[in-house]
Amino acid sequence: MKHIIITLAFTSTFLSAQSQDTTLNKHPKNIILMIGDGMGTAQIYAGLTANKGKLNLERCTVVGFHKNQPVGSYVTDSGAGATAFATGKKTYNTAIGVDATEVAQPTILEIANKHGLATGLVTTCNITDATPAAFIAHQRNRQMMEEIAADFLKTDIDVFIGGGKKYFANRKDGKNLLDSLKAKQYQVIDTFPDVVKVSSGKLAGFVAYEDPKRMLDGRGNQLVPCTQTALRILSKNTKGFFLMVEGSQIDWGGHSNNTDYVTSEMIDFDRAIGEVLDFVEKDGNTLLIITADHETGGMALIDGDMATGKVEAKFLTDHHTGVMIPVFAYGVGAAAFAGIYNNNNIFDKMLAAFQFKQ
Amino acid sequence: MKHIIITLAFTSTFLSAQSQDTTLNKHPKNIILMIGDGMGTAQIYAGLTANKGKLNLERCTVVGFHKNQPVGSYVTDSGAGATAFATGKKTYNTAIGVDATEVAQPTILEIANKHGLATGLVTTCNITDATPAAFIAHQRNRQMMEEIAADFLKTDIDVFIGGGKKYFANRKDGKNLLDSLKAKQYQVIDTFPDVVKVSSGKLAGFVAYEDPKRMLDGRGNQLVPCTQTALRILSKNTKGFFLMVEGSQIDWGGHSNNTDYVTSEMIDFDRAIGEVLDFVEKDGNTLLIITADHETGGMALIDGDMATGKVEAKFLTDHHTGVMIPVFAYGVGAAAFAGIYNNNNIFDKMLAAFQFKQ
Repeated sequence: MKHIIITLAFTSTFLSAQSQDTTLNKHPKNIILMIGDGMGTAQIYAGLTANKGKLNLERCTVVGFHKNQPVGSYVTDSGAGATAFATGKKTYNTAIGVDATEVAQPTILEIANKHGLATGLVTTCNITDATPAAFIAHQRNRQMMEEIAADFLKTDIDVFIGGGKKYFANRKDGKNLLDSLKAKQYQVIDTFPDVVKVSSGKLAGFVAYEDPKRMLDGRGNQLVPCTQTALRILSKNTKGFFLMVEGSQIDWGGHSNNTDYVTSEMIDFDRAIGEVLDFVEKDGNTLLIITADHETGGMALIDGDMATGKVEAKFLTDHHTGVMIPVFAYGVGAAAFAGIYNNNNIFDKMLAAFQFKQ
Repeated sequence: MKHIIITLAFTSTFLSAQSQDTTLNKHPKNIILMIGDGMGTAQIYAGLTANKGKLNLERCTVVGFHKNQPVGSYVTDSGAGATAFATGKKTYNTAIGVDATEVAQPTILEIANKHGLATGLVTTCNITDATPAAFIAHQRNRQMMEEIAADFLKTDIDVFIGGGKKYFANRKDGKNLLDSLKAKQYQVIDTFPDVVKVSSGKLAGFVAYEDPKRMLDGRGNQLVPCTQTALRILSKNTKGFFLMVEGSQIDWGGHSNNTDYVTSEMIDFDRAIGEVLDFVEKDGNTLLIITADHETGGMALIDGDMATGKVEAKFLTDHHTGVMIPVFAYGVGAAAFAGIYNNNNIFDKMLAAFQFKQ
């Protein structure tokens, strides 16, 4: 059992030189960013209620909020949202890894890779969808799925797991990117049971040809073993790693105004959060950040029952809404994520935690 | 300019004995609890947008969430919500300072008073309404406004400022509680300009006969000078003070599904937050906690414009909703308010900050 002590002091004289050294120079070796797409405050509370009053998320000791307005709009999409996290630049909706002038920006994943760290992406959507894409691709529009898939070949990412084999295998340009991946020493695996057997080397793991199933349609417990697989592989790099894990379909539940869809995906994502929290505690050298890109649906909870898990929710829209998004952090350097800041500052804070310059 | 250093360490060995002493034994002399009634995440962001992209609230360095489910329901009212903050007990909706079995519980205000601290309540509603009432009265139902008014005579509260003179002056039982207050050495003052001239002694300040006006109807800048008046008087107690300040009508804007009502009251409350933050910074011995009891209206922001302050919001209900509520903290002992916890734990944390036993 580790002891957590949170210290807030108002003049530097309150802290001895010893503790300042320890604290200000304490940096994680690994960063794990978990994004619950479309996971606003109501979605979290809906999941907590459906899960009978508890979430692993509640183990986080640090809380903050980010403000997610993109360039040129009030409400963000996942492209601009994830690009802000990944590159530190506010950009326009639909942008993938490019700034507001469509210029490619280095991502935290690419920067980590450049510094010799292992890198990975795990999602419950197509691996080429906006949120994972923004960490590895540079395209002016999120709809350019084949161009985004081709960008995976331009990096040395160690592990990516998700749906969307189609955009690598069955392309308009006739190229077979699966062969290209194999030529780069990737283990290209296209069934979930085989993907999660891998424990070393480079892995291109496709759990679906297009979108992975919904939890409501029997996807089952895939995100936890996929995340474990990524952690197993990435942990082998002694320099550290950067991993992004997305609970993608919370957002799709919001777009569908389907409460059971939201809560089942939220609980699935939270199960992965529990797994990652266990890893962070055991590892002792990792920073975990959990947040969302935006809220989806204008969801509100009219009634519920913590004992039975019943959730009675309504939705105001089938689009995203504008609102501050909670950030939860845990582990080495977590304190930097307290307070209220812009979504692109999450990139700055991760870069500072890694002690990297761009 | 003070320097703020936030330290997160994972074993006590990371901190020197010196800093542990400083930190763990550091307690505020004063606590100010500010409650934005009905102020969920969307209400804050609506206020931030209407205020052209900024709020004083953003100066807070510590963020948390509280879970506000009352006894016997999923969604809380202001009675159960404020009673949880005030007494540490989860209770049933409509309860005022009594637990779920209708037994009166000591409030943080009464406990502070018992320890010789000065105490105060400032609101933009009737001083007998549920939120302020729960800190000073013990009644089984919030509708018992005359009984609640009578409970003000049972304490030694130093300052209370709000509407609701009626419940003291024009009562079914024929009693004139204003005379009773005067007999207890209160300065009983019933106009806003005169209330805010007081700088010492005991003050019963009525700014309205019943409900104070809405900002939309020209209430004007009253909450800041009322809060300043309370701080001026309470600061004279060398042992310290407890003050609760409520931005009451954010809730009424939500009940009315009126966006301009919400944002104007939110901005008014935030102006008071700025004033209190300045006090906390200057004083150096105060803990400030800012939160809400619940969300009202199921508000969501469809569109907006940070440059012009335009807010386009919709509401799902004219009632409260169930959702986690943000907590913001600043000053001495603020770090205890990070994380996710129950609304009644806010009482426990305030008690621990004051180092009081009940």
